[in-house]
Amino acid sequence: MAFLTAISSNENIVLHKHLNNGFSLPPRTSFSHRLNIICMKTQPTHVAKSSISQSLQAQELVSPKPSNLVFPEFNFYEYMKMKAKMVNKALDEAVPLQTPIKIHEAMRYSLLAGGKRVRPVLCLASCEIVGGEESMAIPMACSVEMINTMTIIHDDLPCMDNDDLRRGKPTNHKVFGEETAILAGDALLSLSFEHVAAKTPRNVSPERVVQAISELGSAVGSQGLVAGQMLDIASEGKQVSLEELEYIHVHKTSKLLEASVVCGAILGGGHVIDVERLRKYARCIGVLFQVVDDILDVTKSSEELGKTAGKDLESDKATYPKLLGLDKAKEFAGELYRFRYLLESYFDASKAAPLCHLANYIAHRQN
Amino acid sequence: MAFLTAISSNENIVLHKHLNNGFSLPPRTSFSHRLNIICMKTQPTHVAKSSISQSLQAQELVSPKPSNLVFPEFNFYEYMKMKAKMVNKALDEAVPLQTPIKIHEAMRYSLLAGGKRVRPVLCLASCEIVGGEESMAIPMACSVEMINTMTIIHDDLPCMDNDDLRRGKPTNHKVFGEETAILAGDALLSLSFEHVAAKTPRNVSPERVVQAISELGSAVGSQGLVAGQMLDIASEGKQVSLEELEYIHVHKTSKLLEASVVCGAILGGGHVIDVERLRKYARCIGVLFQVVDDILDVTKSSEELGKTAGKDLESDKATYPKLLGLDKAKEFAGELYRFRYLLESYFDASKAAPLCHLANYIAHRQN
Repeated sequence: MAFLTAISSNENIVLHKHLNNGFSLPPRTSFSHRLNIICMKTQPTHVAKSSISQSLQAQELVSPKPSNLVFPEFNFYEYMKMKAKMVNKALDEAVPLQTPIKIHEAMRYSLLAGGKRVRPVLCLASCEIVGGEESMAIPMACSVEMINTMTIIHDDLPCMDNDDLRRGKPTNHKVFGEETAILAGDALLSLSFEHVAAKTPRNVSPERVVQAISELGSAVGSQGLVAGQMLDIASEGKQVSLEELEYIHVHKTSKLLEASVVCGAILGGGHVIDVERLRKYARCIGVLFQVVDDILDVTKSSEELGKTAGKDLESDKATYPKLLGLDKAKEFAGELYRFRYLLESYFDASKAAPLCHLANYIAHRQN
Repeated sequence: MAFLTAISSNENIVLHKHLNNGFSLPPRTSFSHRLNIICMKTQPTHVAKSSISQSLQAQELVSPKPSNLVFPEFNFYEYMKMKAKMVNKALDEAVPLQTPIKIHEAMRYSLLAGGKRVRPVLCLASCEIVGGEESMAIPMACSVEMINTMTIIHDDLPCMDNDDLRRGKPTNHKVFGEETAILAGDALLSLSFEHVAAKTPRNVSPERVVQAISELGSAVGSQGLVAGQMLDIASEGKQVSLEELEYIHVHKTSKLLEASVVCGAILGGGHVIDVERLRKYARCIGVLFQVVDDILDVTKSSEELGKTAGKDLESDKATYPKLLGLDKAKEFAGELYRFRYLLESYFDASKAAPLCHLANYIAHRQN
């Protein structure tokens, strides 16, 4: 529950100040070229290009209808608190402490260690923006968090990023041993698919469940998270171009955020056009998430982050601040953040509030 | 293709001799008690006990209708050769060599390294025994092999079984490094679910695809393969009871064989009663598979097995030969093998031939 406890009432005021004043947007720069590239990449490889998807050009994203995006009646803090509480309860029930005890302890240790629950909330909010009921996407919301936890456990291993601290606690393999950490990750990955298949309520058509599982799988595998991690490892200590860095970010971070949003919309009964619009929004905030992560790594302390700060710099890892400089990285984050407007252009303003505020939260988070 | 090349024409004659003479079955012994326990455990935990499943008592298994099980017109060697060739082609297409190259090389290295393809063939044969077309189960057949490969890659890691040799070749991490081996396993596991969801043909109802994915997940996770591997690791160098050994075997080996058979039958359109009958057959041959594996480990050379022989003995691992003695272990294998008769009792004899012969193959394989 780090996120919820981190937002004290004072911080909440800061958050709302950000919301009301808006983000300081830079004038149109060459970043629009990068955004165009990012958005053009959003078509999933396993979906044949249809006339519908072809009509959704990236241009839609780079010239969205302007808006001031103020939802005075929407309490983002309460919304996040309520959703995260519900997700935590569902996760607790999805992985009960049963025999064999040790593996379930290891799974629960990392899964229930708090965290911001950004992906599950994105999933639920996306389900609701297309008119679905929250219950339709709760199993999927748990599944994306299981996958996020799996990647954290495996990425922290000695042969990968070799991290000792995560969310202010010793990493999984430090507590349970490497072999259990690997198996806990495997079990969470497997459970993520099983959980959606077994627990999605009957008012969601099985066609949509199958489609969502396919989407989820493509986000994780050798064209998704794994591809990003492979290139991330290979890039350590090497000169990496902006294109390569973007490939890493899109795959290592955006893919799962994108799947969270897209799967929520699929399960909520969204029309294919809306699903693809949400995909573009998700891809932008996915890159934004990582750019902000990179910025936080060089501007915050370990204590503030709840994990080892300055790690990227120390390991000579490619990051946006390293390639662009801190100011330009912040500018790019602002440019990515601009595209939350997309939501209000195409969806009912009241329903769009959670996803707009989530983009704002991702842009302005402090850990 | 080790299996196919291993069965020379001479060996094929031996195989047929076995088939025609039948296995030397021991008189009814206390093993029937163990079988009863194994079969009673076959009800999947996520399926509520229905009147149908309750009517399928283990008694059905321990007193099946006797039969001589001779299918003179069925050429098992040709059947296996044809199915394995088709599975290998489908696997090659399912994991093409694409960017990022290294991760796909690692996935393909272990996935296309030959092997007996027992699980995929069980899946296809099970689909056909209930009247389904082979094409309905081809993606699932590939998926169970992807999962088998994933467990092999992860189990061989230094922090697990620390094995250097597999199917006569260096293990995955020896060639590609630990980090790539872990990620290749993750990518294969994820792809296994995605592949079924994305590639199962449209003449299979999505309800059945969802049910099969749930079944597959339960076979892998913390109540399946992972549970077996956890207890297997924990048992090394310790005194292990027959019950604990059985828990390991049922989870580490039988669960995936069971899922192969059960998912094949689900996707082939099998009635729930037939699916549950096939589950019991699968559970028996699953334990049989591991008992035979244990026996081969102490009776064959590394060259004959294509992997390090005597490994279990050396690491003081619990095995059936260790706990029961070699003769009693062989006797138990014979008892388990008896239950292939179940198939002929309930299914059309011509359709039952492949699964009966597969049981025979598992019982009499030499590596």
